[in-house]
Amino acid sequence: MKNPKENCQGYSLDGIRIFPDRTEILNQLRLPFIEEWLVTSNYREVTKAIKDMVIRGAPIIGAAGAIAMYLAVLEGVGKQNILYYLRNAYLEIVGARPTARELAFRTDEVYKVAEQNIIYGNNSFPVEETYKVVLKIFRESIESTEHIINEGISLFTKKSNILTHCNTGSLAVLGRGTALGIIKEAFKRGLVNMVYTGETRPFLQGSRLTSYELKNEGIPHKIIIDSSAPYLMSKGLVDMVIIGADRISSNFDVANKIGSYSLALAAHHHKIPFYVAAPMVTIDHRLKSGEEIMVEERSENEVLFLNEKRIAPEGVSALNYSFDITPSTLVTAIITEKGIIYPEK
Amino acid sequence: MKNPKENCQGYSLDGIRIFPDRTEILNQLRLPFIEEWLVTSNYREVTKAIKDMVIRGAPIIGAAGAIAMYLAVLEGVGKQNILYYLRNAYLEIVGARPTARELAFRTDEVYKVAEQNIIYGNNSFPVEETYKVVLKIFRESIESTEHIINEGISLFTKKSNILTHCNTGSLAVLGRGTALGIIKEAFKRGLVNMVYTGETRPFLQGSRLTSYELKNEGIPHKIIIDSSAPYLMSKGLVDMVIIGADRISSNFDVANKIGSYSLALAAHHHKIPFYVAAPMVTIDHRLKSGEEIMVEERSENEVLFLNEKRIAPEGVSALNYSFDITPSTLVTAIITEKGIIYPEK
Repeated sequence: MKNPKENCQGYSLDGIRIFPDRTEILNQLRLPFIEEWLVTSNYREVTKAIKDMVIRGAPIIGAAGAIAMYLAVLEGVGKQNILYYLRNAYLEIVGARPTARELAFRTDEVYKVAEQNIIYGNNSFPVEETYKVVLKIFRESIESTEHIINEGISLFTKKSNILTHCNTGSLAVLGRGTALGIIKEAFKRGLVNMVYTGETRPFLQGSRLTSYELKNEGIPHKIIIDSSAPYLMSKGLVDMVIIGADRISSNFDVANKIGSYSLALAAHHHKIPFYVAAPMVTIDHRLKSGEEIMVEERSENEVLFLNEKRIAPEGVSALNYSFDITPSTLVTAIITEKGIIYPEK
Repeated sequence: MKNPKENCQGYSLDGIRIFPDRTEILNQLRLPFIEEWLVTSNYREVTKAIKDMVIRGAPIIGAAGAIAMYLAVLEGVGKQNILYYLRNAYLEIVGARPTARELAFRTDEVYKVAEQNIIYGNNSFPVEETYKVVLKIFRESIESTEHIINEGISLFTKKSNILTHCNTGSLAVLGRGTALGIIKEAFKRGLVNMVYTGETRPFLQGSRLTSYELKNEGIPHKIIIDSSAPYLMSKGLVDMVIIGADRISSNFDVANKIGSYSLALAAHHHKIPFYVAAPMVTIDHRLKSGEEIMVEERSENEVLFLNEKRIAPEGVSALNYSFDITPSTLVTAIITEKGIIYPEK
């Protein structure tokens, strides 16, 4: 995988690339076995990629949403009722995945610039203006990732055994990663003994993606089944938990990949620090508490099938919440690009 | 699947059948899709079936161990050094899976009768005597299962939403099941609203086996990924947890399928009763606490492969504890055939 680099045209990153006429999205469904890129100028294809988790991870789907919105502007050139068309595109994009804050937030940033140009700027087809916003989002996001990493490193007091969940690396984020970015930098500084990565059922982001990134960086790690984490803690194998976040309410309750709450409860019981690393944009100040966060329920087939093969009897049902809510009382600290937040206990 | 029935020859049960000249074992690896029976008179084949989890579940592998020991006696007829031969067979059988108490206990029951007959009874090949022990174990085990069910039912105060883990039904036990037996009886009495069954990674006993049994009984249920259970509890969807046990120390710490401890922590946090259903033989009075229970670590390939297909990158490792230890302080009650035990808090 490549390092992020900007050129006169756009950005080339590990999980997503942008150009004035198209975007290229790494198909995370086929990782770690096949590196396949989806190349498209069609906002609906990007939206479908977000919905189907071809691309996943809160910050990177924020960027993908911004690009989708930009492509809608590009595709809209010459259309009548352009505002109506863009409004519909906006709703399609942000509806693809409801829990992650950054998707709605970044899509909205592009949409607003388009709308303001059309209404007040008298430019019905603000292609350049919206592309600039996309570039700004990329720059901002990469920069904030590095700040998060620096803040996170300050929490290490010794060479540690770290437990993480889902994937928060360069496939999920613009840059090296939030939680996984911190782990990568900590490893460089000799602060990592072992990383335990939960496989992250049902989508296996841990075994497929986090393990892939850790292997590429030469970081010692072991995959564990998600429900074994508390037992590892009881055996003294875990010094800290670091995960990402999809949305954080104003009181610092954290929505993140299903299984996070289970880790928080166990870390709390074992007096192990439980850290959440996420950009400030993840915090949704409109929401009083985690109860107001909409938790996406995905198709039961994600639980009932694996490798396209049924793993449960015909005719039975599954319940498939994609996220859970960890109350702020169980969160030791939230690591953001603006500093570390310690929720009140 | 058939109901347990005794005839002049032996027992025919859902997961295992015995006859004076052979045993028949239902291959649980191929369920719920294919019903395949392993027919064998060879104790090593039975031992391998236990080790490979062709047959699994603490009480039923106890029975399988007893049969394996009996088959070793049968195969040993005419052999010189019969005691040495049987002692080796005994060690092979009980070494197949170290955590479940009943395997060692039941194998030992048959072994001791063989040994005593050979040494004191002057019968070098005590085939009939040991077969009688196997029959006694079957009768005892089926009877104790029914007592456990009756005791468990007394804990229901209303129509409930029940969470269970792994498989504790007629595939794991002689009779209708321990935890799952209670659920089946509770359903008959109108006391079950919904059963949530954790899929139970990595072996998927929940999605493959528990769901299969629940479907056959017409009991409403949903499969969940294991790590989502705490979130369901936080949403008020769970009234009680009932699981089985593989070994219980004298202070009532419980070794059970990996993931059980995670459920206990969450149930405790949410003030939801956490019940363990197991026959008295599961309690190992030689052990002071759960720390002394040997927890089996199985091949990492169980985590890294699914349906014989790799799900993680080449060259990475996994850590695969098959059980975990729940301290008695988190256990509301242990349901046995002799009554309900409330561990001291």
